[in-house]
Amino acid sequence: MTDTHPFDDAVRLETVDAHTRRGRTHPEWANMVGPFGGITAAVMLRAVESHPDRIGEPLALTVNYAAPIADGNFDISLRPARTNRTNQHWIVELSQDGDVTTTATALFAVRRDGWTDTESRPPDAPDPEQLPATDPGLVRWTNLYDMRFVEGPMPGKDGQPSPSSTTTLWVRDAARRPVDYTVLAALSDAFYPRVFLRRGGFVPSGTISLTAYFHADQDELDRVGNDFVLCTAHANRFTRGYFDQSAQVWTRDGTLLVTTHQVVYFKS
Amino acid sequence: MTDTHPFDDAVRLETVDAHTRRGRTHPEWANMVGPFGGITAAVMLRAVESHPDRIGEPLALTVNYAAPIADGNFDISLRPARTNRTNQHWIVELSQDGDVTTTATALFAVRRDGWTDTESRPPDAPDPEQLPATDPGLVRWTNLYDMRFVEGPMPGKDGQPSPSSTTTLWVRDAARRPVDYTVLAALSDAFYPRVFLRRGGFVPSGTISLTAYFHADQDELDRVGNDFVLCTAHANRFTRGYFDQSAQVWTRDGTLLVTTHQVVYFKS
Repeated sequence: MTDTHPFDDAVRLETVDAHTRRGRTHPEWANMVGPFGGITAAVMLRAVESHPDRIGEPLALTVNYAAPIADGNFDISLRPARTNRTNQHWIVELSQDGDVTTTATALFAVRRDGWTDTESRPPDAPDPEQLPATDPGLVRWTNLYDMRFVEGPMPGKDGQPSPSSTTTLWVRDAARRPVDYTVLAALSDAFYPRVFLRRGGFVPSGTISLTAYFHADQDELDRVGNDFVLCTAHANRFTRGYFDQSAQVWTRDGTLLVTTHQVVYFKS
Repeated sequence: MTDTHPFDDAVRLETVDAHTRRGRTHPEWANMVGPFGGITAAVMLRAVESHPDRIGEPLALTVNYAAPIADGNFDISLRPARTNRTNQHWIVELSQDGDVTTTATALFAVRRDGWTDTESRPPDAPDPEQLPATDPGLVRWTNLYDMRFVEGPMPGKDGQPSPSSTTTLWVRDAARRPVDYTVLAALSDAFYPRVFLRRGGFVPSGTISLTAYFHADQDELDRVGNDFVLCTAHANRFTRGYFDQSAQVWTRDGTLLVTTHQVVYFKS
């Protein structure tokens, strides 16, 4: 195959030196302003994954969206702040023309066998094949996903305020790119802002900090392949221009792949 | 008053240079290994609060516990990676003898009036005065808090596994130090590990990354004063040596002060 997928195009990085990678924005991943936050999270994680000193697999990622990323090239600087026997802590910064737009910390870890239990339960949902594909259509990047809303679709022109901020949807990469950790990082930011649902329409808003905890191991990712995953999100409190969101990503057979949280600014 | 409180002793920092602060561990805040993670989170936040370039108030904090902190002095290096009109992104590192033990990112922001709603609900709980004070007693720092368990106290010697990982408790500083953002950062890590409850007893474990979202504004903090706050925590998934925890801190009158999340290693 010579074709590459839009996701792989977007997370492709060149090595500038031992601690610097170079990437570029891709117009198909455009959000309201700058690229989709999820693809930025993915590229920060990809930078660490590609580093020869990296040990283990992603366990936790925090991405801070400090400023919009302009169309064009960007540089990512990364360094391991601490390497232990079974885990490693990274500090990552994305910059353009010397100005930092995005900061991140990433925790990689070696998983080991032991006691296991999933205490949370997935939301009730019909199979994705029973639901229509809906493109929220507000921004360009959503074209790259096949989204099937179970609950809480984006309010339309005559939208009414909702007492619940919960959205649940099945999501699959439209070009069937298989799920891996970078894809999970991107999906962590795949929800339109919860304040839209509560207020019944568009509200200026944007994620400013996102954290993801990766529960999936490689076997579980392999089992997902390019199937739909079930994503659910809700907010806890909206106050004085900011709200928080907590979300989960599940497989069709009830495996919890990621729990993820973020804080979002809004003007309402 | 010439007496200072143990909390203020622990977060006191001296300025070494524009981007370096020096502090020290305090034996009364000792955990199983090194200091209580909450007091480390508080000291990282305090470093930013004390910086003359800081704007706004704490909105989000992520602390990565990369290695144990040894008894004695530590240095905190901090820099604003990006300063915007209404928010500011900091990168903070705590080190001893040049080795990084703790990394953090902190987001400070200016709050503004607007639409507000708390969608989460506090857990049911009797007043703290109706409950006995209980010191879990495993580690020294819990002596500094007045803890009144509503649900899910730490399992004792003959503890049995529980199907629920939820713990809810009222907490007050034993010496009645008023609540502020640094206190909320510390309380974010005040829960014993959820795996103890699920397994019915002690399990080697420790927080490796913690994120807190601060919803409270200064007026709300002032109204809490030195009263009890209601803290509740649960886990979502335990797998291959790691689990995640989500928690909330509420006032007696139902104000959600903080939502906080962490990932924890365990051996079981």
